[in-house]
Amino acid sequence: MMFTVHGLSGIPNIREGDDLAEIIVEAACKQGLKIMDGDILVVAQKIVSKSEGRIVDLRSVDPSPFARRLAKRTGKNPSHIEVILSQTKEIVRMAGRHLITETHQGFVCANAGVDRSNIEGEYTVSLLPRDPDSSAKRLRRRIKEVSGSDVAVIISDTFGRPWRLGQTNLAIGVSGMKPLIDYRGCDDMYGRKLRLTVMAVADELASAGELVMGKAGGIPVALIRGYVYERGEGGARNMIRPRELDLFR
Amino acid sequence: MMFTVHGLSGIPNIREGDDLAEIIVEAACKQGLKIMDGDILVVAQKIVSKSEGRIVDLRSVDPSPFARRLAKRTGKNPSHIEVILSQTKEIVRMAGRHLITETHQGFVCANAGVDRSNIEGEYTVSLLPRDPDSSAKRLRRRIKEVSGSDVAVIISDTFGRPWRLGQTNLAIGVSGMKPLIDYRGCDDMYGRKLRLTVMAVADELASAGELVMGKAGGIPVALIRGYVYERGEGGARNMIRPRELDLFR
Repeated sequence: MMFTVHGLSGIPNIREGDDLAEIIVEAACKQGLKIMDGDILVVAQKIVSKSEGRIVDLRSVDPSPFARRLAKRTGKNPSHIEVILSQTKEIVRMAGRHLITETHQGFVCANAGVDRSNIEGEYTVSLLPRDPDSSAKRLRRRIKEVSGSDVAVIISDTFGRPWRLGQTNLAIGVSGMKPLIDYRGCDDMYGRKLRLTVMAVADELASAGELVMGKAGGIPVALIRGYVYERGEGGARNMIRPRELDLFR
Repeated sequence: MMFTVHGLSGIPNIREGDDLAEIIVEAACKQGLKIMDGDILVVAQKIVSKSEGRIVDLRSVDPSPFARRLAKRTGKNPSHIEVILSQTKEIVRMAGRHLITETHQGFVCANAGVDRSNIEGEYTVSLLPRDPDSSAKRLRRRIKEVSGSDVAVIISDTFGRPWRLGQTNLAIGVSGMKPLIDYRGCDDMYGRKLRLTVMAVADELASAGELVMGKAGGIPVALIRGYVYERGEGGARNMIRPRELDLFR
């Protein structure tokens, strides 16, 4: 088995209302890559958020007293904290300068996914898409209209993790593929049944995509070709661990 | 930027003392892939452990009373538990049937990395390599001897994670590349300095490799070609989060 991971360059600065599908298909064409059935597009959360207008000007925000106190503690702008709190369902950990929260979408991450990098303007921050699985689905349908090809779309974002240093990209929105492969029932090479083996392939694909995207913002889309996935719906929401199965909450 | 990920098939059942480097180079050749400078080999922990004889026959183990009590609780064989405890520096969580431990190597994972899949014999389990970074270094040097080519080696294993369902592969041993890329000092696309961005590329490469390896054991090595990495030493041990920086211990 073999697959390729291509970074798509030449994608312009994205603004609210931009047609990401047209922009991605064109960028691929310019690199000699016709989008094909079975391709996977890994798309950075930042450009999806921008196209959806999920950008906040901090000067329009009125921070609460709690946000002001947290701002002192974390060294962040109080309005930035207020925006983080607006995206927060539950604060999972507050320690030192760190704020780990569960977002309304159910993701546990730093600062509820509110982020300042690769956004224009000194006072702007970006929010996660309101419903990243729906965003992925819309983008997939529109890519089908534009290119005629049936692809899977993964919207990826950068997460830290307990126990290990460094961040990796994970899938926050998925459409057109099953994000998990459940190996129960399959045999190992000695005929013993595999147990408790469910691989989060959408997260692994998001990580593979990050390797060509980098952090400087110039390559916000990866095209993965040749990886055979199980088609079907079932978004990134299926990778959220139910609270009762979580040993670390 | 573009890279390819190839699964190497035709690797035989590995036994203690086998020369993994020769076996891997030969398997690559048979697929028409001459190992080249700058290639990355992602190698499943299981075959490294087997080649190093890190296999235990549970019938040779005398379980302690504590292991017997834990066995009742977790539904595991008491000798299996005793082996897990032998590989454990600290128990991080005990809950229901789950045992999350810190291994002597410093990895936090289920069952101290002791595992029954893809091993011959009904009463055998495999242990993690004693020092996976050294294992990776030895394998890299030997591949250089056998093939003449300077590669990076990543030994990968499958980990669960808090907050998200499904497992992903991570790097437990690394040689020939820096496992982390620190973007501090780099600008984003609007000239703003990136802060707090350190990407765990060795883990992302391990995940990319898993996508061609699967779980049935037939493809225990992935060859990644075209990904440009920063050469240098610095093993997977550099990705272990120091306890004082960990919010979830």
